[in-house]
Amino acid sequence: MKRIAVYPGTFDPVTNGHIDLVERSLRIFDEVIVAIAENPKKAPLFSLEDRIALFRKATAKYRHVVIEGFDGLLVDYVKKKKAVAIIRGLRAVSDFEYEMQMALMNRRLDSGIETVFMMPNEEYSFITSTIVKEAASYGGDVSSLVPRVVEDKLKRKFGRKK
Amino acid sequence: MKRIAVYPGTFDPVTNGHIDLVERSLRIFDEVIVAIAENPKKAPLFSLEDRIALFRKATAKYRHVVIEGFDGLLVDYVKKKKAVAIIRGLRAVSDFEYEMQMALMNRRLDSGIETVFMMPNEEYSFITSTIVKEAASYGGDVSSLVPRVVEDKLKRKFGRKK
Amino acid sequence: MKRIAVYPGTFDPVTNGHIDLVERSLRIFDEVIVAIAENPKKAPLFSLEDRIALFRKATAKYRHVVIEGFDGLLVDYVKKKKAVAIIRGLRAVSDFEYEMQMALMNRRLDSGIETVFMMPNEEYSFITSTIVKEAASYGGDVSSLVPRVVEDKLKRKFGRKK
Amino acid sequence: MKRIAVYPGTFDPVTNGHIDLVERSLRIFDEVIVAIAENPKKAPLFSLEDRIALFRKATAKYRHVVIEGFDGLLVDYVKKKKAVAIIRGLRAVSDFEYEMQMALMNRRLDSGIETVFMMPNEEYSFITSTIVKEAASYGGDVSSLVPRVVEDKLKRKFGRKK
Amino acid sequence: MKRIAVYPGTFDPVTNGHIDLVERSLRIFDEVIVAIAENPKKAPLFSLEDRIALFRKATAKYRHVVIEGFDGLLVDYVKKKKAVAIIRGLRAVSDFEYEMQMALMNRRLDSGIETVFMMPNEEYSFITSTIVKEAASYGGDVSSLVPRVVEDKLKRKFGRKK
Amino acid sequence: MKRIAVYPGTFDPVTNGHIDLVERSLRIFDEVIVAIAENPKKAPLFSLEDRIALFRKATAKYRHVVIEGFDGLLVDYVKKKKAVAIIRGLRAVSDFEYEMQMALMNRRLDSGIETVFMMPNEEYSFITSTIVKEAASYGGDVSSLVPRVVEDKLKRKFGRKK
Repeated sequence: MKRIAVYPGTFDPVTNGHIDLVERSLRIFDEVIVAIAENPKKAPLFSLEDRIALFRKATAKYRHVVIEGFDGLLVDYVKKKKAVAIIRGLRAVSDFEYEMQMALMNRRLDSGIETVFMMPNEEYSFITSTIVKEAASYGGDVSSLVPRVVEDKLKRKFGRKK
Repeated sequence: MKRIAVYPGTFDPVTNGHIDLVERSLRIFDEVIVAIAENPKKAPLFSLEDRIALFRKATAKYRHVVIEGFDGLLVDYVKKKKAVAIIRGLRAVSDFEYEMQMALMNRRLDSGIETVFMMPNEEYSFITSTIVKEAASYGGDVSSLVPRVVEDKLKRKFGRKK
Repeated sequence: MKRIAVYPGTFDPVTNGHIDLVERSLRIFDEVIVAIAENPKKAPLFSLEDRIALFRKATAKYRHVVIEGFDGLLVDYVKKKKAVAIIRGLRAVSDFEYEMQMALMNRRLDSGIETVFMMPNEEYSFITSTIVKEAASYGGDVSSLVPRVVEDKLKRKFGRKK
Repeated sequence: MKRIAVYPGTFDPVTNGHIDLVERSLRIFDEVIVAIAENPKKAPLFSLEDRIALFRKATAKYRHVVIEGFDGLLVDYVKKKKAVAIIRGLRAVSDFEYEMQMALMNRRLDSGIETVFMMPNEEYSFITSTIVKEAASYGGDVSSLVPRVVEDKLKRKFGRKK
Repeated sequence: MKRIAVYPGTFDPVTNGHIDLVERSLRIFDEVIVAIAENPKKAPLFSLEDRIALFRKATAKYRHVVIEGFDGLLVDYVKKKKAVAIIRGLRAVSDFEYEMQMALMNRRLDSGIETVFMMPNEEYSFITSTIVKEAASYGGDVSSLVPRVVEDKLKRKFGRKK
Repeated sequence: MKRIAVYPGTFDPVTNGHIDLVERSLRIFDEVIVAIAENPKKAPLFSLEDRIALFRKATAKYRHVVIEGFDGLLVDYVKKKKAVAIIRGLRAVSDFEYEMQMALMNRRLDSGIETVFMMPNEEYSFITSTIVKEAASYGGDVSSLVPRVVEDKLKRKFGRKK
């Protein structure tokens, strides 16, 4: 049986922490589907198309990774994909409680779906897309925090203020 | 002496977790006043009138429960009602810190008012009004999370997407 | 109906934080029974008799407070006393999780028993019996943290090192 | 490729929460090896042999579950078993931080080993072996918290105090 | 060597907790620069000019305190000021995790910059600018939470509703 | 004025995380006194003499660092040393609450003493003396977690089990 996992998120934009988690997931699952949420409520900096393109470029070297846009109820999507698990990264206690709520809610909506939590490298434990965008908007050097394609895209977005 | 407690919140909409807490409070207090905050800042999904009506229908079988709309400073309201305590539910650590801040602030504003914290059934520990609305907006089945009247109202609000 | 609450603990020794919680509880309940656990596993500094005597002296001015030793299953004790609630103080997140576990366990053992959590004055938020004993053992001045009778008892126990 | 996971612990004794986690793990992995730590430092209530026997009886109906005693460095054991992951249950924030430390330490000791965290049913979120033993020692009814064989064993251990 | 520290924040408006932290910092550093962030994203209640003026009046009696407006990347500002540290107050666990993320991010952006955390008096542990504004907007008495100049300013802003 | 800070702990044994914190402290203070607690209650693995010797060897290259044994009330020691601050490392939420309690207690015992919290490099965020000892006791490679002198000492202590 092919074991598929879904890794959902907004990924606005993808960071090295996300890439690290995809790599780790591939040791456990046969295929990882990155499901990028449209999420218009959060008013993302990058369009869904850009977010998909950036994640694809950043994971071009991996086989068994699929990047897709996604809208609707997560558990329906997971079932349609015949996935056995949802993957989520855990870095901090505040993550943990929100994630636990979401996981229990998803289990209630569909009892057959498990959420597994994994930890990124501790080097990436403080990186969030939000913090990266804020630093980049002020001209901060984020080259060690995001893939090269994202760094370039952020520079074009914010100009070179420094 | 009649012991009255005030249970304040936005209740947008009331969930089974809220109902559970009202039931538990009635074992300790002679009367529970549910004070539903107008809260225009949060832009609630349901109007104050709807939120009051839904909570009333969902608690119709209980005596000693009063549902009211509420605006202004909570401690003034509590004093006016001659209540001895504010009731708040605790589910998670993140709740806890915010609640502790609010309770200490209320005590500072009026030293005669105590906040007591109670725990809903663990079955409801992950339910928030926000998570219920999000699931319902995508057509998720929330029948085990909210009273029947709320489920119906949510369906009319979001249509039947599934 | 007389509303009785049980406030259980080891109280080795009673601190101003505990007294503060008793006072606050008396605003809500008609009678508070302080149930001091024998707790031989923790090897208390003070004997059960001493812990009872200290708490009694420190609360001599309150009516409607009963101090008793206690052994066995808490929920059985609470039921025997016809109490409607267990009272516990909450100061910190680490307290909170342990307390939540205990409260859910007690509810499972007897579904009719509620635990209500209250907050001591923020001035006492960092005081624990353990931290008081440690400071006193090195001759630290704990007069603002414990009742006078406890301060005296600690001095006799540890001598006057300073 | 057969995907094996190791679920390590002291399991003194196994609870329904542990069984729940084994069941959930079997949806994701082809085989789950429960590695019961000898752990003489903690002075377990039950001998290693008893803890193994209880877990085996409680999981007799599952195929693809192996129960073993275990001593030494966990990462060495995991490698010897050709497992791809360590499984740990997460219930509370305090769990989370300790588990994160252990997972990062294990990764440092062997970078090829991942830890995945899963959540037990919320009904078991407050159950720990310690809390079960304490309740049972006072004659509390733990029949809804542990497998039948464990309940019987606890009763023989503590006698029928009630 | 003169040891300068930067204390950054939005300070909308300054509270007694902030003043307390400035006082404590002056015991350790030779000069404290309060860097008030423009922060248009958060839509502050008070203009940058007002926030600077209020903080200056509230700290008029202290020498070695400088109040400035600030925009851009914090680490650049700190370096320009030749400061050795960033000061941040810690009150609660939720603070802590966000602060840890920011501190690690700032260290990544400039490895020469340290963040030191200090604790306000426990009396101020629950005060935030947000909670003060909310109470004041409903006519609550905040005289024990903010400097006199701020209390007056809040009254003019919200009128005297009581 | 020479600004002295005291960095207290059991240091059983010193880890790279502790060394990292000493280095960071030296950027802010003129002298750092490492105060190693005798702590017989915790039954340390290494004698006080060994713990002092290991920390001294590991920090031999730093000027302005003093390593001493210490017994008694910390605030008395700090005052005797004419230090302006106590330094403590913060890694995790569970650290944080305990540290906050200790800091508030020390402030109560002597209001002139401040505690400042600093963060070790995130690479060391999961390292504790306890976890290092446990790994070393099973023959785990801890060379990236502790200074070379400590690694050698641990090997002699536990033998070469691998």
